[in-house]
Amino acid sequence: MTRSPIAFGVFLFGLVSTIVFASDPEPTTDFVLPRGVDSAILDGNYFTSTILRNDTMGSGPYSTTTQVSVENFPALQGLGISMSLARYSPGAVVRPQIHPRATELLYVLEGTLDVGFIDSTNKLFRQTLQTGDLWLVPQGMVHFLSNLNDTSEARAVAAFTRSNPGYIDVAASIFGSNERISKQVLSKSFKVYESVIQTLFEAQEQEPISSSVRASP
Amino acid sequence: MTRSPIAFGVFLFGLVSTIVFASDPEPTTDFVLPRGVDSAILDGNYFTSTILRNDTMGSGPYSTTTQVSVENFPALQGLGISMSLARYSPGAVVRPQIHPRATELLYVLEGTLDVGFIDSTNKLFRQTLQTGDLWLVPQGMVHFLSNLNDTSEARAVAAFTRSNPGYIDVAASIFGSNERISKQVLSKSFKVYESVIQTLFEAQEQEPISSSVRASP
Amino acid sequence: MTRSPIAFGVFLFGLVSTIVFASDPEPTTDFVLPRGVDSAILDGNYFTSTILRNDTMGSGPYSTTTQVSVENFPALQGLGISMSLARYSPGAVVRPQIHPRATELLYVLEGTLDVGFIDSTNKLFRQTLQTGDLWLVPQGMVHFLSNLNDTSEARAVAAFTRSNPGYIDVAASIFGSNERISKQVLSKSFKVYESVIQTLFEAQEQEPISSSVRASP
Amino acid sequence: MTRSPIAFGVFLFGLVSTIVFASDPEPTTDFVLPRGVDSAILDGNYFTSTILRNDTMGSGPYSTTTQVSVENFPALQGLGISMSLARYSPGAVVRPQIHPRATELLYVLEGTLDVGFIDSTNKLFRQTLQTGDLWLVPQGMVHFLSNLNDTSEARAVAAFTRSNPGYIDVAASIFGSNERISKQVLSKSFKVYESVIQTLFEAQEQEPISSSVRASP
Amino acid sequence: MTRSPIAFGVFLFGLVSTIVFASDPEPTTDFVLPRGVDSAILDGNYFTSTILRNDTMGSGPYSTTTQVSVENFPALQGLGISMSLARYSPGAVVRPQIHPRATELLYVLEGTLDVGFIDSTNKLFRQTLQTGDLWLVPQGMVHFLSNLNDTSEARAVAAFTRSNPGYIDVAASIFGSNERISKQVLSKSFKVYESVIQTLFEAQEQEPISSSVRASP
Amino acid sequence: MTRSPIAFGVFLFGLVSTIVFASDPEPTTDFVLPRGVDSAILDGNYFTSTILRNDTMGSGPYSTTTQVSVENFPALQGLGISMSLARYSPGAVVRPQIHPRATELLYVLEGTLDVGFIDSTNKLFRQTLQTGDLWLVPQGMVHFLSNLNDTSEARAVAAFTRSNPGYIDVAASIFGSNERISKQVLSKSFKVYESVIQTLFEAQEQEPISSSVRASP
Repeated sequence: MTRSPIAFGVFLFGLVSTIVFASDPEPTTDFVLPRGVDSAILDGNYFTSTILRNDTMGSGPYSTTTQVSVENFPALQGLGISMSLARYSPGAVVRPQIHPRATELLYVLEGTLDVGFIDSTNKLFRQTLQTGDLWLVPQGMVHFLSNLNDTSEARAVAAFTRSNPGYIDVAASIFGSNERISKQVLSKSFKVYESVIQTLFEAQEQEPISSSVRASP
Repeated sequence: MTRSPIAFGVFLFGLVSTIVFASDPEPTTDFVLPRGVDSAILDGNYFTSTILRNDTMGSGPYSTTTQVSVENFPALQGLGISMSLARYSPGAVVRPQIHPRATELLYVLEGTLDVGFIDSTNKLFRQTLQTGDLWLVPQGMVHFLSNLNDTSEARAVAAFTRSNPGYIDVAASIFGSNERISKQVLSKSFKVYESVIQTLFEAQEQEPISSSVRASP
Repeated sequence: MTRSPIAFGVFLFGLVSTIVFASDPEPTTDFVLPRGVDSAILDGNYFTSTILRNDTMGSGPYSTTTQVSVENFPALQGLGISMSLARYSPGAVVRPQIHPRATELLYVLEGTLDVGFIDSTNKLFRQTLQTGDLWLVPQGMVHFLSNLNDTSEARAVAAFTRSNPGYIDVAASIFGSNERISKQVLSKSFKVYESVIQTLFEAQEQEPISSSVRASP
Repeated sequence: MTRSPIAFGVFLFGLVSTIVFASDPEPTTDFVLPRGVDSAILDGNYFTSTILRNDTMGSGPYSTTTQVSVENFPALQGLGISMSLARYSPGAVVRPQIHPRATELLYVLEGTLDVGFIDSTNKLFRQTLQTGDLWLVPQGMVHFLSNLNDTSEARAVAAFTRSNPGYIDVAASIFGSNERISKQVLSKSFKVYESVIQTLFEAQEQEPISSSVRASP
Repeated sequence: MTRSPIAFGVFLFGLVSTIVFASDPEPTTDFVLPRGVDSAILDGNYFTSTILRNDTMGSGPYSTTTQVSVENFPALQGLGISMSLARYSPGAVVRPQIHPRATELLYVLEGTLDVGFIDSTNKLFRQTLQTGDLWLVPQGMVHFLSNLNDTSEARAVAAFTRSNPGYIDVAASIFGSNERISKQVLSKSFKVYESVIQTLFEAQEQEPISSSVRASP
Repeated sequence: MTRSPIAFGVFLFGLVSTIVFASDPEPTTDFVLPRGVDSAILDGNYFTSTILRNDTMGSGPYSTTTQVSVENFPALQGLGISMSLARYSPGAVVRPQIHPRATELLYVLEGTLDVGFIDSTNKLFRQTLQTGDLWLVPQGMVHFLSNLNDTSEARAVAAFTRSNPGYIDVAASIFGSNERISKQVLSKSFKVYESVIQTLFEAQEQEPISSSVRASP
């Protein structure tokens, strides 16, 4: 056993108040009252997030996503919902991604979006969304979005079925992890020479052409 | 026992395929594939709803809410999420209401909204929402919204934690039910003369000054 | 953003041990063992509540409800169940109310009760319950009870699907909140003059004619 | 593989409408509306069970339990709650039993009860319950009750966290199953001679001295 | 009320960080990060358990089960799964037992096993499992296993639907609890003389002929 | 709205019995009894799967996975668990994959495995597993396995927290979907020339060097 008894005790002790921030059960109170804050001073501000109020676009072919989750809007704790707002410059692409813990329902506020997800039989479900359309991505499905229009920006708001849906950017996960996955494994997985894998590794280190920002600081 | 054995058999039989449309479990397939439709012909349209594409305002001091739920967007089945889009004319009020099965997260698209919910200790949490603000209403709380601005319309999109959140309009529920609740009960409950209850009953029969439309047909 | 970074940090920190008292997951131990109490000294008393043992009636047209929830019976923690005992004097009314987090199943111990709930289509389901009857109120539905009998007391025990079901007294919630909902909003909602709303506000400040006591101290 | 492809097809087909009667999800409608019954004709009777109205005692040292579950009160479907009413003659014993799918909360209506459950460390939690006491049995724990008073009857109502909690009578399960468990296995398990196991087998075939009736027909 | 206000305060306080170790919700983070451990130093070891690496057999007609649960593999926290490895000497019996919080799926690694469970109608489902077979025990069902082969060892790995399934050894629970269940109750329950119950009590105090070890220290 | 009212009716109707096969709620019966099969004829075979009994290895650098899920072992219905057995030839790689609906717990039966998963911060958690080790992959995380040993086979059994966990093979999902994702989108996502994407597309059409078989027919 590689973990020593001492380290083990540390782990057990460590769990004690961590899980409280890591779970999404249904509350048995109206909402989760923060400790150290007298409930008498809580008001409507606690249930309001102004994070999305001033979303602004950068320049270049970027998409910008601002995620509001339990991490920056604590009142969501235990209520199983969160939202994000995204802006897509002309030509912007949201890279294939997965939400490991949530289904997503997206509403197009402005512009048009070319979108798709791939189910577990490797079938692609594509769609061109118009302003006002709703698009559904079932939990755990690889999906992507793009604003292929050359001149117009697009905007969308998305709701998720967890207070923190999680994002996995597939390209960054596989070719851009902090420590590299072995070239041998990826060469066999993608059935290409290791030199191609090397190209893909290096590409992930370039300046991003699509950026995803989670939340304003 | 007032129910006869025969009627009872009917009930049991009746349950057989009804629950399938009435529950929101997590699926064990990528999504719920409709029976009678060959999966091969399913495409991106199944995961897209265009119901909100052409929302238009009526005139007068109305709010108009279009709800997209599993009832008009079947792909939501079992995925625990739904959305609605609301427009509020100047002066419009969304009457105190409750979602018995869902927490709501509202995003203000345009205008300002005066909102509030009351928790189970009868404490009011009020807020004036600006464009871009998010507002949270925990499951089962009485809440209301109004566009007190005299000239500008407001718009908002709301997400819910169930594929069908349910709406209970408190005024209509108590004073406008199909069969009336007894005046004696309501007189004691609201601690007013029965004549006041009668006034409240009659008011519910008037032309609505605030209308809530669930979904386009 | 109206909340400062400092206040925000407080909120995040504050959450750390609050959720533990606010959730109802299924335990992964036989029951929740209280910290600071040696499990060796736990005995059958921990799983017994004597709160309802000596329920006594006040006088006057009151109903008296004693709620046993996780707040006064800690062993219920995480087990998704609670109970209450109610006594109804002749003429007593339990005002329209909602349990935001629980379905209720009521068993009439003594007397008869006129009861009803209104579903989300505003349909009233009325019933006169006899001693020995069970009555079901689905989660989130507005319901009321009354003992319209002029001379006999009634008693009932109710079970709930959460360790803390929550109570929303509709009249008190809308017309008796600590800070008043705006008269303009309520006037439009109930479609009556603001003077009627004023009457309803003032009525809530009167001596209650129906009292609901949650738990003995 | 012992199951043929044909039999396998039958199983798959067979599942189609069976699960509907076998699950307890949270509904996405106010309640489960039975098919084959026009919702317009549903009234308060659907939400009322009169099964417990006329519970009467047999004679002899028996306990009699009437269970109201989704099987005889269909409105419970999907709502995660059920109830039972039990009468205990002087000297009656409710044999050690387990509810595999529910926590139980018992309220003593009349008399006193000696009760106990054993947790998974084989620790016994005993209690003598007085009239008015609540007693909690966490899901899956072996528990038993007895009315050791020689002259007085006792009565109790119990609530469960499922619409059908399930009952496992431990003695009948192990020594009274339709086909006998092998004597060799039980002899080793209980560490007694097979002749003792034979005695225990034969005892289960005797006239019951404690009877448990699930529901009136 | 037997519990004093002071003791009560202790219970409430005690709950604060206990529930965190007692629940199995779905996390809203990728996994539960232990407090007091810098996430930067976490590596693959945290997600690996070596407890089963060196399982060795004792001698004699024993079965030996090593349970890996959240208690000795903290990364399982909140993920709803655990495993055990069992070895069965020739003639070994796993006594009738119940997992109060989990369904079990067992895979036979080596040898043959005679197994069975009894459902809540007291029907026995027996089976002789071959190497490579999977066997399912639904949550809460009494089940047993034996290696009736006289010469060959058997081995199996079992998965459970909770991070801590719980074990109730029926014989030990009923006849071997720390404090004895009353002979009178058990005599009536099993319908045998109290002397037989006494025999069963004493048998539980013997050297075990089947031992169940939960986890290596 | 692109879907006609008629097609819509078909969808609604189609849902009626499909969800029954697509959900994983906790049963309210001991297990799900298949319709069209008399419960009296059910025996231990229904709870046993022999699918894994005769797993045999193909030749070449392959891994072979046999998945036992509710699709080929109907008794798993509603019980939230499934298993698979995998064999890894020397040099075999299990390509990066995701289970969208389940956490995985893997037990190494034979050989050693180099494994890893990447969390949503793109941190790689690598490990070399020895025979007897358990490895945990939280729900929705990209993970991979390889048997880098040149001469020895490896084998492992994995348990999942759903009756059907789902498999997403990332390389096949993104570069091998039935209809291709647009080269422009993938070029921007992976930040490489479209010619590299073309190479990756073509590679997916080659004879697989790692095969994943779900279940024996």
